[in-house]
Amino acid sequence: MRASRFPLFTVKETPADADTLSHQLMLRAGMIRKLAAGIYTWTPLGTRVLHKVANIVREEMNRTGALEMLMPVVLPKELWEESGRWDKYGDLLLRIQDRKKAWYCFGPTHEEVICDLVRHEIKSYRQLPITFYQIQTKFRDEIRPRFGVMRAREFLMKDAYSFHLDQASLDETYRSMYQAYTRIFTRLGLNFRAVSADSGDIGGDVSHEFQVLAESGEDAIAFSDQSDYAANIELAEALAPARERPKPSEICTKIDTPGKTTCKEVAAYLKVPITSTVRAIAVVGSGGFALILVRGDHELNETKLKKIEGFGDYRLATEKEIELHLRCRAGYIGPVNLNPYPDMHRNRTLYTATASAPINELAPFMLIVDRTVDKMSDFVCGANEAGYHCRGFNLDRDLEQGYIVADIRKVAEGDPSPDGKGTLRIVRGIEVGHIFQNGRKYTEAMHVSVLDDQGRTQTPITGCYGIGVSRIVAAAIEQNNDERGIIWPDSIAPFHIALLPLNMHKSEKLQSEAEALYKELTKDGYEVLMDDRPLRPGPMFADAELIGIPHRVVLSERGLNAGSVEYKGRRDASNHDVPRRELLTFLKERVRISISP
Amino acid sequence: MRASRFPLFTVKETPADADTLSHQLMLRAGMIRKLAAGIYTWTPLGTRVLHKVANIVREEMNRTGALEMLMPVVLPKELWEESGRWDKYGDLLLRIQDRKKAWYCFGPTHEEVICDLVRHEIKSYRQLPITFYQIQTKFRDEIRPRFGVMRAREFLMKDAYSFHLDQASLDETYRSMYQAYTRIFTRLGLNFRAVSADSGDIGGDVSHEFQVLAESGEDAIAFSDQSDYAANIELAEALAPARERPKPSEICTKIDTPGKTTCKEVAAYLKVPITSTVRAIAVVGSGGFALILVRGDHELNETKLKKIEGFGDYRLATEKEIELHLRCRAGYIGPVNLNPYPDMHRNRTLYTATASAPINELAPFMLIVDRTVDKMSDFVCGANEAGYHCRGFNLDRDLEQGYIVADIRKVAEGDPSPDGKGTLRIVRGIEVGHIFQNGRKYTEAMHVSVLDDQGRTQTPITGCYGIGVSRIVAAAIEQNNDERGIIWPDSIAPFHIALLPLNMHKSEKLQSEAEALYKELTKDGYEVLMDDRPLRPGPMFADAELIGIPHRVVLSERGLNAGSVEYKGRRDASNHDVPRRELLTFLKERVRISISP
Repeated sequence: MRASRFPLFTVKETPADADTLSHQLMLRAGMIRKLAAGIYTWTPLGTRVLHKVANIVREEMNRTGALEMLMPVVLPKELWEESGRWDKYGDLLLRIQDRKKAWYCFGPTHEEVICDLVRHEIKSYRQLPITFYQIQTKFRDEIRPRFGVMRAREFLMKDAYSFHLDQASLDETYRSMYQAYTRIFTRLGLNFRAVSADSGDIGGDVSHEFQVLAESGEDAIAFSDQSDYAANIELAEALAPARERPKPSEICTKIDTPGKTTCKEVAAYLKVPITSTVRAIAVVGSGGFALILVRGDHELNETKLKKIEGFGDYRLATEKEIELHLRCRAGYIGPVNLNPYPDMHRNRTLYTATASAPINELAPFMLIVDRTVDKMSDFVCGANEAGYHCRGFNLDRDLEQGYIVADIRKVAEGDPSPDGKGTLRIVRGIEVGHIFQNGRKYTEAMHVSVLDDQGRTQTPITGCYGIGVSRIVAAAIEQNNDERGIIWPDSIAPFHIALLPLNMHKSEKLQSEAEALYKELTKDGYEVLMDDRPLRPGPMFADAELIGIPHRVVLSERGLNAGSVEYKGRRDASNHDVPRRELLTFLKERVRISISP
Repeated sequence: MRASRFPLFTVKETPADADTLSHQLMLRAGMIRKLAAGIYTWTPLGTRVLHKVANIVREEMNRTGALEMLMPVVLPKELWEESGRWDKYGDLLLRIQDRKKAWYCFGPTHEEVICDLVRHEIKSYRQLPITFYQIQTKFRDEIRPRFGVMRAREFLMKDAYSFHLDQASLDETYRSMYQAYTRIFTRLGLNFRAVSADSGDIGGDVSHEFQVLAESGEDAIAFSDQSDYAANIELAEALAPARERPKPSEICTKIDTPGKTTCKEVAAYLKVPITSTVRAIAVVGSGGFALILVRGDHELNETKLKKIEGFGDYRLATEKEIELHLRCRAGYIGPVNLNPYPDMHRNRTLYTATASAPINELAPFMLIVDRTVDKMSDFVCGANEAGYHCRGFNLDRDLEQGYIVADIRKVAEGDPSPDGKGTLRIVRGIEVGHIFQNGRKYTEAMHVSVLDDQGRTQTPITGCYGIGVSRIVAAAIEQNNDERGIIWPDSIAPFHIALLPLNMHKSEKLQSEAEALYKELTKDGYEVLMDDRPLRPGPMFADAELIGIPHRVVLSERGLNAGSVEYKGRRDASNHDVPRRELLTFLKERVRISISP
């Protein structure tokens, strides 16, 4: 491709409204342009990268035996009502009314559509297992689209769905998808981790997220420094400390802590480590009011708390509720002088209270203690009296009521790894893929069935497997850039080689040499952007670097007279002078043209 | 691909609600499944064909230097208001409101979006000409979606847009697109014609439709039997008969024609050829009331009439309007005893009447005479008196008012070709491509400008070029089928070869021979569907024929013992026995694997 015929919409200034590096670089390199909030046009440059990503995904999906198809974008309401998602999906679902006032949605995923196809077309266990996929434009009406194509409303996604007679077959396909995803992200040249993930709204049990590691990532990932263990921080187990709870050694004392309401303030005030303090949090769920205890430096993990019966829908308690149950205002609450409800955790009756309605009635409440707190002794906590804290508090000695112990905190850097190997580190990641085992959630709701080898009707079990194709482009940039711009991995670079003939318009010899080299390189299978624009070398180099072409070959009259050209890899610190006649061999060792498997 | 792992959703019965052959065959072959009115899922089989079509289109577009990009599907109202199309496009435009109540549409074409990109990014004439294209899902909310994917609401389209400093440059790109389209439809193996077309709503002057010839086509095309001339029947010129108008030879006589209101009835009743009769049609436009005369066997061409000043928005006159102006009821109206407005056509003043409001005022009206009628003499026409016609009517002798002569009829089979070579034939076609010269319609409305070589601001002139990718699949089937099913051209066949080992499950030898041959064929670049399902030969043959695989290789134990396999082309009447060791050479001469240019 000649730059004179391939428009580069590069800009020098960093766009004001771009909030991440990849968003800034995609705008500056002219890969995308915003059309509306969360809606982008992909320019010819951006489209080349997007297609390369899509093709790698396609090749690896085909390799697993998954079958490509194309489902509609506009989906009828009736189908979504069958699965219950029409109401449940909320405002993320872009709803559309056609000229006949019938309702549709712009498909955000396609479980209903594929189940509809399967229930009509697949009759026998002999046709299973089967996996379908598509690469398609999707829409989710994000309330705050941001980070450019990273969290856009309209985006390109690969979504796959598998159907099985039994769990063993699903497990096998799941493993095969896990491997395919690993190959895909490896071929894409990304630094990623497959992490155990909470499967969130899609439902089901087993799931893995594929996270590209990057500072700007929205997700936090915990991984072991000595094993393969990796999990979304929402899901990573915080082990109970291995030691026994030490015996009490202090007397429980009430201390005046005026205006000190956070553990950090109290610890500083009392000159104790924050790890000796315990934070109390009051919450309300359908299970009633509850007091939660976590160590002062630990964070409550909402996902874990929601798994406790009666708190799946919990919210923070209001000030009124706190005063009603604890007779104390927030900031000083703690497990001290509570109502005497001995053995609450064994005898408790769950009573109905909705998360949205306040609890007006005084009733027994639960005390939920994090595993770490359970192993602490002589700790500092709120005295349940405004302006005071207690020190030397011990659960077994000083608590007036029963409690339950659970893993309810987020893991922290330095925690022991749940698999017993090494300690945890926390990094941020961008979710680019997600594989789920869905169970029979959709097949049951949509009445999908097949006959097994005994002629009995069976509901297939399913998996679903997504990749954010357009998001990958941004994620790759987050990992591969420097102050001069993007640095593409060879496999998804818009061009492999930037061929830059300096002052070509002043030298016929240079021009014909450049043309000859362009033809040779193209013939060898390289995708070459030859910059034939009448530019000075500076802006020419700057463009090639900004748009991230991984290999640069510079032709100059002086060089040609000496029989050499100048090569520079995008990450190299300096140039190599390469004899012209050795250039092709030289490049062959350095440029990795993506080869289909 | 093995049939055991590639689901064929074939059905024997012709689906009740499929109205054309291609729709029936696509359903029966299991290429598509309906999800909602005009909305289809493409199965793995259908998707293979769809992608092959898309790839041929992509290759040929790239060859012209057009740049692929990807514009959004969801487009903001504001942009469509700039071009005026938000209001003008009508109910075909699927309008969408997002969660913030902002309005969008599902893009049916992308003139606005590309103009928006160009006005921001292209500054100089040096960057022109430039052509952008995309292959993308589009939506048009057809009131009556029909014929399957032929007139679906959701469909796959290639749309391209070119920008130029001047007409000469547009003409050059237009020619290049014309040639690319010709290559595309040739490579697709289609019998097509490029026809001059009325450019309809998109606006502009020059345009060509690419029509695949098929009985079921919605468009009528007129073409010369002795030249390249071809035009949409809406646009084909009806030449004036070459002869002079004969002198009157009959006296104008009023004849009782009770209950005979059509030319056909009157001709039969009077025992004259219908070509001696003239039909009068009363219409109303902003130019007022008008009486139109066409020969009894000719059809009024609405598109042509609309080009006459004052009738761009014409409608048929109501009974009241006819009685008011002609003092006669419909069925017997004619150019007889009209109000005396001599030389109306020279002195007429256009007065305002809207096409929707009836004309209540008696006023001068126009008489518009088709070229053919203008050359007739002694004809039969309505007497402008209920129950009567006239015979022996002659315009120059018997008419009381002036008239204008225009080409306002549809051409008919046997008319002379407008290019003076041969006579016209009429065939039906399916529009699969359309190229337009748009002028500055969109660039002016959207304020697109570039600087020319003198530094002056210029509004670029544009072309746009569409191909209905999904429609092509149906059109190809309309042209290529027999009573057993589809017959794919090699270039877009889902598989090149059906490899059918008969009773493979009973013979280990056959099984290993089939596997070996499958590997050999695949290695040679053929896409092979090996039917390894435990089926009897009948259903196996039927499936391969129904889904249209163009080449069939049958392996049987008896054949192998004799050292031969059986080959049959999908259009062949009988089998060929081919020695096994010569098979690859044999196939090489017959199977055309699509090669990129």
